[in-house]
Amino acid sequence: MVNLDLPVFDDVLSAALQINGAAHQTPVIESPELNERVGGRVLLKLETLQRTGSFKFRGAYNKISRLDAAGHPGGIIAYSGGNHAQGAAASATLMRFPAVVMMPANAVQSKVDATRALGATVTFYPPEEAHLRTERAMKIAREMQAAVIPSYDDFDVISGQGTVGLELFETSKELGAPIDALLVPCSGGGLAAGCGLARDALSPDTALYTVEPEDFDDTAKSLKAGKRLKNDPKARSICDALLMSPPGELTFEINRKSLNGALAVSDEQVRQAMTFAFNRLKLVVEPGGAVALAAVLSGRLPTKDKTTAIVISGGNVDPRLFGSIVLGGSQPARGLAGALR
Amino acid sequence: MVNLDLPVFDDVLSAALQINGAAHQTPVIESPELNERVGGRVLLKLETLQRTGSFKFRGAYNKISRLDAAGHPGGIIAYSGGNHAQGAAASATLMRFPAVVMMPANAVQSKVDATRALGATVTFYPPEEAHLRTERAMKIAREMQAAVIPSYDDFDVISGQGTVGLELFETSKELGAPIDALLVPCSGGGLAAGCGLARDALSPDTALYTVEPEDFDDTAKSLKAGKRLKNDPKARSICDALLMSPPGELTFEINRKSLNGALAVSDEQVRQAMTFAFNRLKLVVEPGGAVALAAVLSGRLPTKDKTTAIVISGGNVDPRLFGSIVLGGSQPARGLAGALR
Repeated sequence: MVNLDLPVFDDVLSAALQINGAAHQTPVIESPELNERVGGRVLLKLETLQRTGSFKFRGAYNKISRLDAAGHPGGIIAYSGGNHAQGAAASATLMRFPAVVMMPANAVQSKVDATRALGATVTFYPPEEAHLRTERAMKIAREMQAAVIPSYDDFDVISGQGTVGLELFETSKELGAPIDALLVPCSGGGLAAGCGLARDALSPDTALYTVEPEDFDDTAKSLKAGKRLKNDPKARSICDALLMSPPGELTFEINRKSLNGALAVSDEQVRQAMTFAFNRLKLVVEPGGAVALAAVLSGRLPTKDKTTAIVISGGNVDPRLFGSIVLGGSQPARGLAGALR
Repeated sequence: MVNLDLPVFDDVLSAALQINGAAHQTPVIESPELNERVGGRVLLKLETLQRTGSFKFRGAYNKISRLDAAGHPGGIIAYSGGNHAQGAAASATLMRFPAVVMMPANAVQSKVDATRALGATVTFYPPEEAHLRTERAMKIAREMQAAVIPSYDDFDVISGQGTVGLELFETSKELGAPIDALLVPCSGGGLAAGCGLARDALSPDTALYTVEPEDFDDTAKSLKAGKRLKNDPKARSICDALLMSPPGELTFEINRKSLNGALAVSDEQVRQAMTFAFNRLKLVVEPGGAVALAAVLSGRLPTKDKTTAIVISGGNVDPRLFGSIVLGGSQPARGLAGALR
């Protein structure tokens, strides 16, 4: 067994200093209507308002800003469905590194456009070859003398994502509102792992849950099995940001000790959460960014008389899909969602 | 000439105490992309995240929570296109007052639905009889022994809206970012008047501007003429929240001394601002709530190397209109906007 170099809470604190001034300390809001609906208190950490529209900027910047420029004349190379792509592109541009981002050919168009607008060169790979992308990125990186920036299974990336939890627990302390449960969207597990480090240090009584799309619950299944499992390649979901599997090696090593449970929500519950966010919270949330809200709204865990914190993790949604969902026509939404897959 | 009882800054401070715990202290955010685009710093005060989705809750609650229940067995009566309606309905429900809200028959359906959901009885008047609504409300109020809650021309309502400015200048101080110019959406002028009181006391060097829809620039015209003028009844705009005229008696008396200028933006500029807010800021903003952002994005005043603060004043937008605007089809947007008028 390999001895893994895992980040600890001090690395999250270091990340907070590292990203300060580049990343936003995002607001935490409450909605009286949401509180009333769940019979408790819900704190919403708005990573939709983070630079590049998702929490992914934190980890990417924490990694990229620590790179030695001289050692990487080719800059950075990242692979991502779209949110890490934007976080890495923006971080590289801030650091004046060239950036190449490999995206699946079926990535959401608005995410591709945004990644390019942030200064990266985008290349595409066939979605069915996702399992080869790390190997390919490493090969290109060697040729280009570039640094590979993984989207979740990385010491600095996990530490960076942990600043979401750090800020949330600091806000909770200021508010005098201890958090009973923290729900974070989960794909590769970087956000969950980072938040787990913060939870252990700052609020050990808080229960930490991942939320995954149904049929993309590889973290839930892996926890049960005690080993890292993949999702069924035939599975489909509108949550384009949460389709990666299996869990990362580092992230799973942290998460399997840290998580109190792993929840899953359906696409329909995600649509309802996005519509609630639009109508009642006035927030633009992408499908993958809405899964924790969906879990709370659909009663996937007890919230009555409790304080539940959720991370609204991203807002980079295709306008057509968003329009079809908030217009409430479930038929067109399904059609479009299918098309986007 | 009548001696008007005008609020002063102490009344804004009193309002801040009065609404504390009921209203949210809304976040102020910045967007690196927006800053870059305007060549300066833009602070966005997010009243879309205020209770009921607009700043109007502040003034309504400041007024309604001070009412003597025994003197008003009939509760409250308000008249509004939709945002003050929701603010008044929510405030009345919190205070356990019955509430009747008179809305124009062409009000945005989602605003009517939300006002009812907040506990108010909604009645309708023909939009062309808007000028009679105050008189009618006062008549009903006498019959019902209810209190009339004006949407802007009121001592407590102006003081309540002033807390937006109070919080913004406090944040500016914390950030060490003195505000060169503050832009606020304007219809009756309550928000501008309240913010003017805060500006005079806390940041006298800040220039204060109203932003109105083109053809609904009664405040701009009234400032020039030195008297309160009405809009052309044939004028049309997608900014349903900003159609009232003339300026209030109290608000104009404050604003004519306090404002440094009055700007106007076109519906097309508002659509572009709403689309920018959706795509880049991940915020749901209604047309009337986006006019100050539209003014900044369309270069209606110098922003280079300056710090400009804008109030994003509301997010209660019809889903169909929002969908058509963010989908970018200016033709369907125009069609729908027309239908909504």
